[in-house]
Amino acid sequence: MAQKIEKITSREDDFSQWYTDVVKNAGLADYGSVKGTMIFKPYGYAIWENIVAITDKMFKEQNVQNVYFPLLIPKNLFSKEKEHIEGFAPELATVTKVGDKDLSEELYIRPTSEVLICTHFAKEVKSYRDLPLIYNQWTNVMRWEKTTRPFLRTSEFLWQEGHTVHASEQEAKNMTLTMFDVYKKLANDYLLLPVISGRKTEKEKFSGAKETYSIEALMYDGQALQSGTSHYFGTNFAEAFNIKFQNKDQKEEFAYSTSWGVSTRLIGAIIMTHSDDQGLVLPSKIAPIQIQIININESEEVEKTSNQLFNSLKDSYRVFIDKTDKSFGFKISEAEIKGIPIRIEIGPRDLTNNVVTISRRDTRTKEQVSIDKVVEYVEKQIQDYDKNIYNIALKNLKNKTYEANTIDEYESILNKNQGLVLVPFCGDINCENQVKERTQTNSRCIPDIDEKIEAKCFNCEKQAKYRVYFARAY
Amino acid sequence: MAQKIEKITSREDDFSQWYTDVVKNAGLADYGSVKGTMIFKPYGYAIWENIVAITDKMFKEQNVQNVYFPLLIPKNLFSKEKEHIEGFAPELATVTKVGDKDLSEELYIRPTSEVLICTHFAKEVKSYRDLPLIYNQWTNVMRWEKTTRPFLRTSEFLWQEGHTVHASEQEAKNMTLTMFDVYKKLANDYLLLPVISGRKTEKEKFSGAKETYSIEALMYDGQALQSGTSHYFGTNFAEAFNIKFQNKDQKEEFAYSTSWGVSTRLIGAIIMTHSDDQGLVLPSKIAPIQIQIININESEEVEKTSNQLFNSLKDSYRVFIDKTDKSFGFKISEAEIKGIPIRIEIGPRDLTNNVVTISRRDTRTKEQVSIDKVVEYVEKQIQDYDKNIYNIALKNLKNKTYEANTIDEYESILNKNQGLVLVPFCGDINCENQVKERTQTNSRCIPDIDEKIEAKCFNCEKQAKYRVYFARAY
Repeated sequence: MAQKIEKITSREDDFSQWYTDVVKNAGLADYGSVKGTMIFKPYGYAIWENIVAITDKMFKEQNVQNVYFPLLIPKNLFSKEKEHIEGFAPELATVTKVGDKDLSEELYIRPTSEVLICTHFAKEVKSYRDLPLIYNQWTNVMRWEKTTRPFLRTSEFLWQEGHTVHASEQEAKNMTLTMFDVYKKLANDYLLLPVISGRKTEKEKFSGAKETYSIEALMYDGQALQSGTSHYFGTNFAEAFNIKFQNKDQKEEFAYSTSWGVSTRLIGAIIMTHSDDQGLVLPSKIAPIQIQIININESEEVEKTSNQLFNSLKDSYRVFIDKTDKSFGFKISEAEIKGIPIRIEIGPRDLTNNVVTISRRDTRTKEQVSIDKVVEYVEKQIQDYDKNIYNIALKNLKNKTYEANTIDEYESILNKNQGLVLVPFCGDINCENQVKERTQTNSRCIPDIDEKIEAKCFNCEKQAKYRVYFARAY
Repeated sequence: MAQKIEKITSREDDFSQWYTDVVKNAGLADYGSVKGTMIFKPYGYAIWENIVAITDKMFKEQNVQNVYFPLLIPKNLFSKEKEHIEGFAPELATVTKVGDKDLSEELYIRPTSEVLICTHFAKEVKSYRDLPLIYNQWTNVMRWEKTTRPFLRTSEFLWQEGHTVHASEQEAKNMTLTMFDVYKKLANDYLLLPVISGRKTEKEKFSGAKETYSIEALMYDGQALQSGTSHYFGTNFAEAFNIKFQNKDQKEEFAYSTSWGVSTRLIGAIIMTHSDDQGLVLPSKIAPIQIQIININESEEVEKTSNQLFNSLKDSYRVFIDKTDKSFGFKISEAEIKGIPIRIEIGPRDLTNNVVTISRRDTRTKEQVSIDKVVEYVEKQIQDYDKNIYNIALKNLKNKTYEANTIDEYESILNKNQGLVLVPFCGDINCENQVKERTQTNSRCIPDIDEKIEAKCFNCEKQAKYRVYFARAY
């Protein structure tokens, strides 16, 4: 990194430019050589590694087994489930030749792996004894995009895709909901993203799914971001791919399948939820560096204290001492822009009083702390830090949640503010298409509100089926 | 898995069929829908996850930073380094369209990522202060192959590719050798693969490299398998991609780069080195299950002891109790075929004597062990187990290493045996091409033998430069 920190645009002035500035100056990512692709630089990739480690552990507690399926899918195979191919067709990157030779069949780079995994399930599953199969893979996928932005929308992205197959409808439905819960926990407890959650409407369901459940986070600017989805397929894919098993009564049945995924979009959600005009703000559990120690000079005393603190913290935290020859001021700015939760500055003057100066990235407050109290102080501050950034995000979500009963009310809210708007809705695809055309917004999810609804649809005025959140979204 | 274990062909009768049988019956992999691709099933992928965890930890001790670069490489960019494109051209899977639309430039699926990473290095590196950059990525890559075999040679495979750039020749050369040492340690200490190691000849170097270092394992059948390579590029890629930096004297210089990789071929090497006619034999450090507990019946006493042993072992080992309703005999066969190092059988008769029966997969010996001695017994047995399988492999390597001084001697060895043959060699590409044409074998590596060589080349009879191992190889 050059010895210069560039100025970050204020997020109030230009949210989109602010985002780009943060991604660039925190050293998270760069653009790839092919339009729409991105490079995960070490600091950006380290955040993903932490998310993967947390998520993978939660999966394994649910008896998920990791696998790896091929990148390329034959065109014929992809076309077996009709809704599925219709949903993906325009985004499919297609391999047509190898070296100078044309292939006899076109191959798609996977946008998701349902078709390959279901083909395999059909081969593996013969009896109820072979069920369930609970697979997951951490991979790259490709969905060609016209407008792209690092982490949020790129032609290639990294994700996990879980695919399961079950002997009963109930078990498959439970699986869908179990993974939906895992995602809620991931968002709330680790990424500190307050989310609204619920089923998708007919229009917004995944191509080929019977039900899609989604968690939706609200960005600082009031736009929503779909952050994780869990799909129940019923026997749709089993029928298309012939996944049959002999049940306990020796009868053949189609199996029930699910899939579920989160992607590197989560990093975009984290940036746009927590960060500020000084740069990145990262939840401590996924911060590549949780504590940065900065020595004000290289005196023996400073070095000694620095190493001593490093050693007393390193078993519980990811700690880093910046020993480069960058200036003190530069190191401070860099720690801020990279969103390091806790910064410990060690200088000779403080040491005469047996203290060091500890700053928090979220509040930007500083305190002098006795050297022998640093460990317990840091422990408490990191807890407070996580609570604080969660609460700021929650407040933003609450402040930007509205209700409307008519399309005019809805539009007038949108004209003044961005945010989530809860409306009574008929659930009809055509009606939702109309809303989309008129407002450029989509439904986000149908929250699990336990009430009989007696209202009319906010748009078509037919009987409403449920209340649903609409919003502008990334 | 069906309630049936298929018979494995003897490795003496048909090594190739034996390999296929082991891969299939141990549940490691299956064929993909596209010819030449493979599916990593849970048990096969779990082995790879263990290899990744061990290797990634060793990398991080060397200050390696993980990154992720895009899958697709523009044709023009790929063509910048001449030897590199020549080496890969016939194997490149090429994306020519998205949806119905032709792309304006063809895109290659990465066979390796030198060109994208070097393009990025050129942008990032301005001063000696920016160096070194020590990057690695764990990814899928694609090199179209005509003859494929699971793990050993597939059109798509998983690997890690490290890419580094340095301010001096010496530093880059040291990096190349450091990673070469990491690979030797990985092979010897964790995968229990005795290897020969050294530089590659001119002919066998990586496309675009100045030096390639390789570790080569010897399979049970006497064929070699290249198991990891580390490349020194000098300034070849820096010149092609314009990676320049200002040195301490404020002068512009080209940077020095390296790359290094190991892949899922390692799993093939492990299978063909350690396994036997009963199925897989796995080094304990990468075995997905290190200890399997099998209860002979479901009596309260058996269950209690089983849970008690599970609890006393689970913090130190990957332990699994097979609680399925498969028969006892089937569970034994499955544990054998899957290469689980230690098997503990718990039955009511043994329990009246306060013992359990413990078997080792390598020696297939059984012993009755007091319940209160199980933990220490297992600890010792696992150590012995690892030593034993390493020594068997080492003995095979030594027994199948030969020397020859003329091409006739070499051929007569090959006609009788497979193995590594150390020969004096001139180093000339044309000469090596002749040998290849005549014997269908390649040089493997030039071992680091500290001696002046006074012999003639075994093939062309010119002055030999060094001694080199030739062998038939996978």
